[in-house]
Amino acid sequence: MDRLIDAISETHNPSVVGIDPTPQLIPQAVTASMVEDAYGSMRQSGDYTDLVPQAMAMSYFLFGQAIIDAVAGIVPAVKPQIAMYEALGAIGVSAYNQTCRYAQEQGLYVIGDIKRADIGTSAAHYAHHLSGISATLPIPEAPAHTDPWHEDAVTVNPYLGADAVKPFLDAAEPHDKDVFCLVHTSNPSATQIQDLQLVNGQHVYEHVGMLVDQQNRNTTGLHGYGRLGAVVGATYPAQGRALRARMPHTFFLIPGYGAQGGTATDIAAMADEHGSGIIVNSSRAIIGAWKRRDHTTMRNPDEALAVVMACARDAAIDMRDNLRAALT
Amino acid sequence: MDRLIDAISETHNPSVVGIDPTPQLIPQAVTASMVEDAYGSMRQSGDYTDLVPQAMAMSYFLFGQAIIDAVAGIVPAVKPQIAMYEALGAIGVSAYNQTCRYAQEQGLYVIGDIKRADIGTSAAHYAHHLSGISATLPIPEAPAHTDPWHEDAVTVNPYLGADAVKPFLDAAEPHDKDVFCLVHTSNPSATQIQDLQLVNGQHVYEHVGMLVDQQNRNTTGLHGYGRLGAVVGATYPAQGRALRARMPHTFFLIPGYGAQGGTATDIAAMADEHGSGIIVNSSRAIIGAWKRRDHTTMRNPDEALAVVMACARDAAIDMRDNLRAALT
Repeated sequence: MDRLIDAISETHNPSVVGIDPTPQLIPQAVTASMVEDAYGSMRQSGDYTDLVPQAMAMSYFLFGQAIIDAVAGIVPAVKPQIAMYEALGAIGVSAYNQTCRYAQEQGLYVIGDIKRADIGTSAAHYAHHLSGISATLPIPEAPAHTDPWHEDAVTVNPYLGADAVKPFLDAAEPHDKDVFCLVHTSNPSATQIQDLQLVNGQHVYEHVGMLVDQQNRNTTGLHGYGRLGAVVGATYPAQGRALRARMPHTFFLIPGYGAQGGTATDIAAMADEHGSGIIVNSSRAIIGAWKRRDHTTMRNPDEALAVVMACARDAAIDMRDNLRAALT
Repeated sequence: MDRLIDAISETHNPSVVGIDPTPQLIPQAVTASMVEDAYGSMRQSGDYTDLVPQAMAMSYFLFGQAIIDAVAGIVPAVKPQIAMYEALGAIGVSAYNQTCRYAQEQGLYVIGDIKRADIGTSAAHYAHHLSGISATLPIPEAPAHTDPWHEDAVTVNPYLGADAVKPFLDAAEPHDKDVFCLVHTSNPSATQIQDLQLVNGQHVYEHVGMLVDQQNRNTTGLHGYGRLGAVVGATYPAQGRALRARMPHTFFLIPGYGAQGGTATDIAAMADEHGSGIIVNSSRAIIGAWKRRDHTTMRNPDEALAVVMACARDAAIDMRDNLRAALT
């Protein structure tokens, strides 16, 4: 987790911007222009099957690029949500790859919010998100290693146990990357399974926290935190405090701030004694900030994206300042 | 679940072939030929970055196509594992899409093994795996609906509770598709969370089973089973029997048969009183059957794929006959 913690120190900002584009979050001028572009590019073939996914994928990429340009230098990291891109099929996944790559090129640490989990060989294949693809071919031009994903960390789901998490950790180690395992999520129905009480008095989320802590033990970095982090929702502050007390070497990725209801005070209680050990995600409050402004100046894609950027930048600075105030 | 149950009746075969390609499962002659093809296609641009992922994605597609051709008419369904394709990036996801499409074109019911789960809006976006993309544009050539995924059902993960499952069910309903929620998985570390005992005496997997059963209640089809199925591993027969007793209207997708150790007898105990209510997955035993044969006749891709097909077909017939014997 050292690279992320260094990036947080450099920006004095423990926040990450979630890039979760939806059709409603893209200014109309951008979408309309991408529909026109896609239409033009398909005129020759006469095959318009992929018009909508292609136009939306391009819109998502341009939108993400604008957000990244707006927040680079202010925040240490971004967290693209693959679900939004995957909704569009392989074209969308390609836009996700390009978005992650662009963010890395701007010096941002990229947390791929993929929440993957599977057994044995399948988990090992998902872990290529972190390790990329290595192959030695008798072709001198073929690169020995390629990385289609451009992620510095990914999120994983614990329901299948350690088998499903270990391949990600194994892939993270040699590439100096990280993994965040869901422990207590921020959504209303999180309680249905995660808050069940066990015969030993613990709750499921605490037991999952202990499993994460065990797997994390031999990965501790220079700053005292291991490569396996935990996702702990801001919307369940009591659970977050309980987990912090039991997981001193586990870094927390905290969703649920802002739009979902978590406050800076809730979050401060999940930090360590130095106000460190956490990174707080905000998505809609940053990337949708433009929707609260006057839209009359958004007559074309460039003007629209300029408004998106200015609003995202202001919102990211506000969030940074709120977190700084709460954590000192 | 009616379409799947009908397909099982037509083939008299409650089995599904898992299409989980790995580099080791593709005959060398196929991979070598696809590397050559990819190399040729990149010579003009001089950009060989994607040589390996492209060659592997094409190999996986050809391999999947051969498996599908071999088992169509024998099995009712296939279950492509997206992790294997996703390892290759967006190019791999595109090969996954093409594989699913090809399987549907051959009349097979396609279970996309994606094990997705996320909160609210993100889950709703993942659910486009089932609903496709609808959009009304002022362009007459643009289709009002496209489906990039070509899946008839997908698998989901319950750790986030009902919020993460409901959007998939909502998407399944109008498109007459289905969803399978992990309840008890087949892997060794499944026990770490799924077998924990709760204060009320139940185990976590039983509680998850009850949540699935609740969500499934209003979706019961013509054959008595709802749209929300459960993934129940053959490697935990006692848990499987306990779940069958408590979930009479929930169809089971059963992995872990064969290579992982589950037997036909274990599985028979998870069926209903008519020997129905289940579909059993086998991956490696079918798609890797060719590895047990003499390879000297596999001098080129066509010969290699012919051997793959013959072996997969024989293995699929063996499995069908074993299951028929166990279930009557």
